[in-house]
Amino acid sequence: MTNQVEKAFQYVEDNKNNVLSVFKEFLSIPSISSDPDHANDIISAAHWVKDYLDKLGVSNTALLETGQHPVVFGEYQCGDDSKPTILIYGHYDVQPPDPLDLWKSEPFIAEISKNRIFARGASDMKGQIMVFLSAIEAIVKTGSLSVNLKFMIEGEEEIGSPSIEAFLEKHKDLFKCDFVLNLDAGSLSKTQPSIVYGLRGLAYFEIHVFGPDHDLHSGLFGGVVRNPVQVLAELLSGMIDEQGIIQLPGFYDDVMPIGDDEKSEMAKLGLDEDYYKTQTGADALFGDSSFSPTERIGARPTLDINGILGGFTGVGPKTIIPSKSMAKISMRLVPNQTPRNVYTQLVRYLEKNAPNGIKWQLIRLSGDSETPYVTNPNAPETQCFAEALKTIWGVDPIHQREGGSIPIASNIQNILGASSILSGFGLPEDKIHSPNESMDLDMFWKGIHAVILYLIKVGEKCN
Amino acid sequence: MTNQVEKAFQYVEDNKNNVLSVFKEFLSIPSISSDPDHANDIISAAHWVKDYLDKLGVSNTALLETGQHPVVFGEYQCGDDSKPTILIYGHYDVQPPDPLDLWKSEPFIAEISKNRIFARGASDMKGQIMVFLSAIEAIVKTGSLSVNLKFMIEGEEEIGSPSIEAFLEKHKDLFKCDFVLNLDAGSLSKTQPSIVYGLRGLAYFEIHVFGPDHDLHSGLFGGVVRNPVQVLAELLSGMIDEQGIIQLPGFYDDVMPIGDDEKSEMAKLGLDEDYYKTQTGADALFGDSSFSPTERIGARPTLDINGILGGFTGVGPKTIIPSKSMAKISMRLVPNQTPRNVYTQLVRYLEKNAPNGIKWQLIRLSGDSETPYVTNPNAPETQCFAEALKTIWGVDPIHQREGGSIPIASNIQNILGASSILSGFGLPEDKIHSPNESMDLDMFWKGIHAVILYLIKVGEKCN
Repeated sequence: MTNQVEKAFQYVEDNKNNVLSVFKEFLSIPSISSDPDHANDIISAAHWVKDYLDKLGVSNTALLETGQHPVVFGEYQCGDDSKPTILIYGHYDVQPPDPLDLWKSEPFIAEISKNRIFARGASDMKGQIMVFLSAIEAIVKTGSLSVNLKFMIEGEEEIGSPSIEAFLEKHKDLFKCDFVLNLDAGSLSKTQPSIVYGLRGLAYFEIHVFGPDHDLHSGLFGGVVRNPVQVLAELLSGMIDEQGIIQLPGFYDDVMPIGDDEKSEMAKLGLDEDYYKTQTGADALFGDSSFSPTERIGARPTLDINGILGGFTGVGPKTIIPSKSMAKISMRLVPNQTPRNVYTQLVRYLEKNAPNGIKWQLIRLSGDSETPYVTNPNAPETQCFAEALKTIWGVDPIHQREGGSIPIASNIQNILGASSILSGFGLPEDKIHSPNESMDLDMFWKGIHAVILYLIKVGEKCN
Repeated sequence: MTNQVEKAFQYVEDNKNNVLSVFKEFLSIPSISSDPDHANDIISAAHWVKDYLDKLGVSNTALLETGQHPVVFGEYQCGDDSKPTILIYGHYDVQPPDPLDLWKSEPFIAEISKNRIFARGASDMKGQIMVFLSAIEAIVKTGSLSVNLKFMIEGEEEIGSPSIEAFLEKHKDLFKCDFVLNLDAGSLSKTQPSIVYGLRGLAYFEIHVFGPDHDLHSGLFGGVVRNPVQVLAELLSGMIDEQGIIQLPGFYDDVMPIGDDEKSEMAKLGLDEDYYKTQTGADALFGDSSFSPTERIGARPTLDINGILGGFTGVGPKTIIPSKSMAKISMRLVPNQTPRNVYTQLVRYLEKNAPNGIKWQLIRLSGDSETPYVTNPNAPETQCFAEALKTIWGVDPIHQREGGSIPIASNIQNILGASSILSGFGLPEDKIHSPNESMDLDMFWKGIHAVILYLIKVGEKCN
């Protein structure tokens, strides 16, 4: 361990109480982005972050306007243009604390108990912000950074970042960077750090089927008209075959094959059929058996019916032929599928398979930008982060492709052209978005160490 | 025309104003069976009918108790046991008048306008009760009946006759009869009288499909579990093929073929594809093309999805894999199908086709007694009624098999073993169950003539 790392670690050790008390101060601001009553708290939290950056010597700090809540900006230049510029992403907003009666402590008065800090935002993600702020502080108080930093700490993540695309387009140059560090993606477990290098995209639709122009009496008209619920059932049924293969024309044409390296990395997760049965409560698994469950979730596209509605759904019998029906369906996409291509495939499927006697309508509920995301897990900046994690945890981190979406990663990749290191120190058991959210303090201190190590090493190696 | 018929007709002619004023009195009682606030009105209406029967010299009149509203009983013995006994069925209860603001006159203050009498119950079916009471009155005031009558005038028809089966079982002997006259089935048009000799039965089910034990995040679990909405869509889709043929095992085994006579009778209705397109607003018809639309509705069984529900159906996207789904389906049955056999067939279908990874549950929402109904349109008592209609209207009535159910006809057939003459003088345009219900007065007076003729002729011929 270099002298610089040692000094920074010592600084953390000497300042633990202070770090925790500053962390508690941050947690005391109820920066609930969804609630207009907390608009002032949002601004307070943004200023709190800006002030902290100012104290660290970060330049050009500012609250940049968006459609709604401001983005905190700042940049730190180490004086060496050959060093990489890392954009550190975060969000200072939090979920509402409801239901309040299930909290064992006050959601905005942090309490430490059993080596965890309890408060709304403790893990998601004020704790992660504290990790990188504390790491930077330890470095700059005991020496200097040898890497360039930019900061983008937004206030709308918990409401779906509605302003972020337009904001990124507008400030493309300001946020120019080599890559992004986003600690909002968590860790697999307390003993197994992880880095997410792939995410699925999303295409979401509503299909409406219209039959007779009013609900019909099934006695008077049963047997002569198409039933729009029956037609919808047939259309949905035909979209997936008995092996779980999606039947939209050309659906798999653009799907990137899974490399052997990736397959063995995914196998390391050790998530077998029993794991998924326990997690889901399903009696048996289902899906394309040419791929393992982990491969299917992380690196294969899916099509799911998210909801369906038609006719009479109240108590008891009502003998109608419904006049219409509706289903919500969505696809999780993998590189190099695009929401737009999938839309075209779905239109073609409906055109081919919808029978006469009904009308149908397809509505898109998601945009072109929710593209799948994948980056190279072997890129030097990512390898460097992996090494830092390994040094602190003593095990190689697992490189993961996740089934869900982190739209900011795709947005930044699409607009700024930069890949993200998606990791973090939150754990699955942190109860984010739920009552009694907390962050494990071992993860917190280890996270600070890992980021210190990373920021020092990446400046040395990745240039 | 016999002397007896002429005298009775003359009596009607001489008493028109009186008949209308008595009719208005009957219509003024708001005997709404579904509304507990009108419990006293129900009793008043029952007494009104009983008192009328008493005035006609009907014996043993009584309000017989049921689980809810009483049935008015009475019997008229002509003194000749070789004459048939006709059970006259009717209901003195009415639908609620809501929405009140759409009525052009008061629903319970009858008004005559444009040769129609407007009030709740005018057509359904206080008007029909007035028809047979007036016809009997005309006969007994000018001579005597040569046929035996029994009366069963119930007060729960508009709430589905929940008490009637147990009531019929209990009073099997009291209501013993040769056949039933039920004027609640209406007429095809003002110029085309009709007699219904077949009705479809009903089997109604709820199918529930259960997948994961809670709604799942489609990103985290999409691709590894069965989606219960998808499974339900597949099960429903497989129940009917592209030709509209129902795929439950053995579904058509018990279906009575349609005779050539029946086919030509149905063709006389002249209801072509365009008629059904206009009625339903559907772009194209659908169903087993080996049968005409009228045959499919009247004499072929159907299976219809009446409702479906699963997952998220609110506004916008929500990326879940639902944990469960539900559909309501019902079959219209024809002789000799039974609700119980169809239930067994559906269970077998689900056992065979439901995949692993899900659980299903089937709930019956209808009973064993909703059997299909068909009787011989050429039975002498029916032919005799047909002749009476022909004499008054100048055209042969059409013998119809209807697609809906009139459960009382099946119940009486199953429990008392008697067939019903299902006809009446209501018209499709009478707006029964809707605001501004009315009865055409031409139909009313002609109906009285037809019933007079019938009761006199049936006593002469049908013995």
